[in-house]
Amino acid sequence: MRTTSEHPSALTEDPRELDRTDPLSHIAAAAEAYRNWGRWGEDDRLGTLNLIDDDARARAAALVRRGASFSLSQPFDMNGPQQGWRRRTNPVHTMLDTGTDAEFIGQGFPHGLGGADDVIAMPLQCSTQWDGLGHIFDRGMAWNGRPAGRVVTSEGDLVTGIEHAASAIVGRGVLLDLGRLLGPRLDEAGRDELPDGYAITVDDLEACIEAQGPTSRVGRGDLVLVRTGRYTRARREGWNGYAGGPSAGLSFTTAGWIHRTGVAAIATDTWGFEVRPNEFDDAFQPLHQVVIPNIGLTVGEMWDLDALAEDCAADGRYEFLLTAPPLPITGAVGSPVNPIALK
Amino acid sequence: MRTTSEHPSALTEDPRELDRTDPLSHIAAAAEAYRNWGRWGEDDRLGTLNLIDDDARARAAALVRRGASFSLSQPFDMNGPQQGWRRRTNPVHTMLDTGTDAEFIGQGFPHGLGGADDVIAMPLQCSTQWDGLGHIFDRGMAWNGRPAGRVVTSEGDLVTGIEHAASAIVGRGVLLDLGRLLGPRLDEAGRDELPDGYAITVDDLEACIEAQGPTSRVGRGDLVLVRTGRYTRARREGWNGYAGGPSAGLSFTTAGWIHRTGVAAIATDTWGFEVRPNEFDDAFQPLHQVVIPNIGLTVGEMWDLDALAEDCAADGRYEFLLTAPPLPITGAVGSPVNPIALK
Amino acid sequence: MRTTSEHPSALTEDPRELDRTDPLSHIAAAAEAYRNWGRWGEDDRLGTLNLIDDDARARAAALVRRGASFSLSQPFDMNGPQQGWRRRTNPVHTMLDTGTDAEFIGQGFPHGLGGADDVIAMPLQCSTQWDGLGHIFDRGMAWNGRPAGRVVTSEGDLVTGIEHAASAIVGRGVLLDLGRLLGPRLDEAGRDELPDGYAITVDDLEACIEAQGPTSRVGRGDLVLVRTGRYTRARREGWNGYAGGPSAGLSFTTAGWIHRTGVAAIATDTWGFEVRPNEFDDAFQPLHQVVIPNIGLTVGEMWDLDALAEDCAADGRYEFLLTAPPLPITGAVGSPVNPIALK
Amino acid sequence: MRTTSEHPSALTEDPRELDRTDPLSHIAAAAEAYRNWGRWGEDDRLGTLNLIDDDARARAAALVRRGASFSLSQPFDMNGPQQGWRRRTNPVHTMLDTGTDAEFIGQGFPHGLGGADDVIAMPLQCSTQWDGLGHIFDRGMAWNGRPAGRVVTSEGDLVTGIEHAASAIVGRGVLLDLGRLLGPRLDEAGRDELPDGYAITVDDLEACIEAQGPTSRVGRGDLVLVRTGRYTRARREGWNGYAGGPSAGLSFTTAGWIHRTGVAAIATDTWGFEVRPNEFDDAFQPLHQVVIPNIGLTVGEMWDLDALAEDCAADGRYEFLLTAPPLPITGAVGSPVNPIALK
Repeated sequence: MRTTSEHPSALTEDPRELDRTDPLSHIAAAAEAYRNWGRWGEDDRLGTLNLIDDDARARAAALVRRGASFSLSQPFDMNGPQQGWRRRTNPVHTMLDTGTDAEFIGQGFPHGLGGADDVIAMPLQCSTQWDGLGHIFDRGMAWNGRPAGRVVTSEGDLVTGIEHAASAIVGRGVLLDLGRLLGPRLDEAGRDELPDGYAITVDDLEACIEAQGPTSRVGRGDLVLVRTGRYTRARREGWNGYAGGPSAGLSFTTAGWIHRTGVAAIATDTWGFEVRPNEFDDAFQPLHQVVIPNIGLTVGEMWDLDALAEDCAADGRYEFLLTAPPLPITGAVGSPVNPIALK
Repeated sequence: MRTTSEHPSALTEDPRELDRTDPLSHIAAAAEAYRNWGRWGEDDRLGTLNLIDDDARARAAALVRRGASFSLSQPFDMNGPQQGWRRRTNPVHTMLDTGTDAEFIGQGFPHGLGGADDVIAMPLQCSTQWDGLGHIFDRGMAWNGRPAGRVVTSEGDLVTGIEHAASAIVGRGVLLDLGRLLGPRLDEAGRDELPDGYAITVDDLEACIEAQGPTSRVGRGDLVLVRTGRYTRARREGWNGYAGGPSAGLSFTTAGWIHRTGVAAIATDTWGFEVRPNEFDDAFQPLHQVVIPNIGLTVGEMWDLDALAEDCAADGRYEFLLTAPPLPITGAVGSPVNPIALK
Repeated sequence: MRTTSEHPSALTEDPRELDRTDPLSHIAAAAEAYRNWGRWGEDDRLGTLNLIDDDARARAAALVRRGASFSLSQPFDMNGPQQGWRRRTNPVHTMLDTGTDAEFIGQGFPHGLGGADDVIAMPLQCSTQWDGLGHIFDRGMAWNGRPAGRVVTSEGDLVTGIEHAASAIVGRGVLLDLGRLLGPRLDEAGRDELPDGYAITVDDLEACIEAQGPTSRVGRGDLVLVRTGRYTRARREGWNGYAGGPSAGLSFTTAGWIHRTGVAAIATDTWGFEVRPNEFDDAFQPLHQVVIPNIGLTVGEMWDLDALAEDCAADGRYEFLLTAPPLPITGAVGSPVNPIALK
Repeated sequence: MRTTSEHPSALTEDPRELDRTDPLSHIAAAAEAYRNWGRWGEDDRLGTLNLIDDDARARAAALVRRGASFSLSQPFDMNGPQQGWRRRTNPVHTMLDTGTDAEFIGQGFPHGLGGADDVIAMPLQCSTQWDGLGHIFDRGMAWNGRPAGRVVTSEGDLVTGIEHAASAIVGRGVLLDLGRLLGPRLDEAGRDELPDGYAITVDDLEACIEAQGPTSRVGRGDLVLVRTGRYTRARREGWNGYAGGPSAGLSFTTAGWIHRTGVAAIATDTWGFEVRPNEFDDAFQPLHQVVIPNIGLTVGEMWDLDALAEDCAADGRYEFLLTAPPLPITGAVGSPVNPIALK
């Protein structure tokens, strides 16, 4: 546990040392200690995505051996996890034209052409997604020290809209399969799944890297995927509070690790990235509050890491080219994404 | 012009030989000649995407040199090209929570956390997109010889929904910059843009490959991007009928070339892929009618190829790794996409 | 119980006489016996709404005494009863502009003008509503004997769209408060609420009219509101399956009464108008199948009848002017409505 | 022209006396002079709708003679007037289930039941509508002197949401047909239509009342409908800027008349209620800024008054029972409405 001298207690990396009654002090200390405001200039719109450069992308492409392609997206449909909280629904997909009409009724096109069109309505946070830099604020401030109200109005994110990251999120992906590492010991049935409420610590992350071997090293510009097994369970047993309920996830105390490793983005197979319930008596997503507006981290949630994890375990290689571009929806604070890992 | 003996007149690859008054005969002949039904089994859901295999993906990844990443997506917002035809609107993006509320009013979260969420409603055919295999029917039949009404009902595409292609569309991309090849001669101002109504022929495609050099060869499993310059002009002069109006595009007579080259998918920078007005006196997108339900081709439309084209022209390399996964919207007949070319 | 001789057993008005194993015979018999096809001409788009004429409307207006106005609509918001069945969500209401932006950030309007705009996305069957004539089909046929596929395509209801009833649904309303009549005897706590699964019979309806007195007589062109108390309970105890779960409602055996009284429309305070579970071992909304496509009845669901019922009980007058126009959404098969009872 | 002595120049009721270069002074003076803040208590949510009481409603019902019912709503569909300004689209209506599927494919219901469901997505300001009290702010303040940001956040209108008016908008309607009064003199073809840019003055309103006779008197609690003929023209010639472009409408100088007559609400057949272009060199809807947040007036726009106007002209009776309830969308700042005039 790397702690004490260089980390005053508010910055402890041992969850047991957190003062559960004082989230604000911990949040304030971490925000101040790890803040990247100004690091990439006054006008920055990308945060830690700046840490991926073309060389890194070229090296990531060179990791590809077999050409095996993995989609890391959950299905987008009405059977998704949303239950209405904050007006987040599941995607509503409807048809403007159908094959039934084309076959039996006709649609007004000549010479036997028929067509089907469709429409979707969905919250951008409904399923596999990126949280953009305008998604979370810390005490009124958005990424890079901008007042929240100057960034995200009802017109959308006028400054750090997700469209700015349209070509940025391509790089070396690393899977840290905490479910596989710790599940057999912690899960009641010995599955590769962390129990709800389990806070993944810096020690856990480093133990995972150690256990998985050198293809798992994490460094500057990497896109880190943390598998807990929460989605595995949801797929087997039903959602049961997947969206907002208890779950394993990153401990608040990982903020320093996130900062010093220089990772470009982190995504998990959970709804909320960080452990739920949160590690304070009264708090809501305190790690978000540190990493998004202060560190400038782009955060991925509700990814399906299972097939990729199987493959990594099989061949012992946990690194790959990850291509996970958001849809460039102008002014969006998040985006659905179908991330592709190419091994 | 490869023609006569092996191609009866209905299959001519010279647009001047088309009988403008008889689209149905041409459609029927091409559909029959190039039909891939059953080629990948009774249960196939991917069509020509089957032609990309892991080896092809590995070779495509090996094309990456500099690590330069290009987003090929147009912006998704209300300023898009749609004007209401077939209830196709531009994307409507609204906020569920804003930074203004977070900064000035409060949102009920503790300890200074604020958040912004958003929602989108959009036709899946509104902007940069893939047409899925259920998007077009030919005389009541969908891809692989299935009756259209058994494939796409108001529940969506029950068989060939775009979710089946979630991990498939990754491979070698090739840019054929017809605008750059022919524009200087054909455009009134000598720009790298084809005039509206220009039908790109097989000869044009082959001349382009010849002119661009060996990185432009087109073969089995390739993802071919055809730039006309139509979007370049729309960006400069306004949409002016970009959606559905006149445009350069592929000639109906390219169907055979599409079939025999074994390309996995083709995308263009135009609304409609094929030349507009179509090459018959009375027709609507006859090439679609051949290539989607008969050949099983996945078709991309409204891509932004300009920055990539600049780069290809600069370094003389027209091939790259293309990662263009659809959102796995269950049962969708198309999907918005942010394609990434990595060079 | 008016039965036997004039009603062969398939048309019984005694629910105990229904053959629970043979819904199709009952449906077929009732459809045939009560069918109004052709009664108002080949081109009819209104069904039993034709039974309201201007005289009836004038007489209804003359019923107004005090000028007390009752809204019979439930709230339209995310807290509604829908749980996703058949992609029916609750209404999603989002803001395009807000007062927060207007007050603190500015919106680009001159001289201090600020504005708020909003958007809604909702199924037309999500809350208080009318089912239009294109909402239900019987063995492939729509109202007036038209093939369903010629009436409602993915373009909407091309024939009997709810817009045709835009000015029609104004007339004499009559409240039949079955909850108040029978609840004290049937509800376990003696409340004015029918128990779930209670099938309201013709005898019940006539007993209610008798008990409530002459202002409750039901006849040609009347708009009949049947209160079960189901919504009263949902308001008190939560939805608990309000949408699609068990509920009191009209018995299948009331079809003949509906036909012979000549009512123009019927609305209830339940999700589904008819009793749930339905009165056959395997069936789905069999009374709908008779009354909408065969009788041509416009059906209202999820109305809030409680305040009106209180008032009727207090003054003993159960008739009023009812103004309940649908939104004239072109081609809609239903419409949200805020019905107004004026007493 | 009632002016000078009792009206200082900033409050002139003669448009020619407006200082076109100083809208703010005029707005400020009118806001101060006609402000109703506090008139109905601190907690008021209804504004001038308070001026309709039950007696007024009973008297309005007594106006009904023939029982003729007029829908005053425009159609809700993709052919509406919106062109994307402020993300206002036309309504997008899609089907969740169709008759084609029911007839030819089957939908999983037993015994031949088929169904059609539908969905709508629309701005609440897209077509025939009421502007709620939270729709417009004056220098950061909402109706009754509340700060705009405390009233309308991204959660909606938390105070004066349109749901509070669910049962309120029923009363005596009066049609003032300015198009018919002045069109024959002012329209180039002598039609019953005012030319674009024509500002309807207090003198015009009083002349209209005088000309139409005693059934047109306007007083406390009335719902006044002002017909310009703008929609008549749009129906004949196409929208041509109906939404936001030039139009006849109320002059800014009518604010005092609106205040002193005590009308409960005013609706017009135009997009914007007041004259367009507005009567100042640089302004945007200045009369809205006075009447909604200061007077507390509910404003109707884009109504179809033509059939009603024909009838009124024919029988000489310009008063009727008007029932125009908003949909009770929780927190909405406006609502689509199908207003019913009953004569």
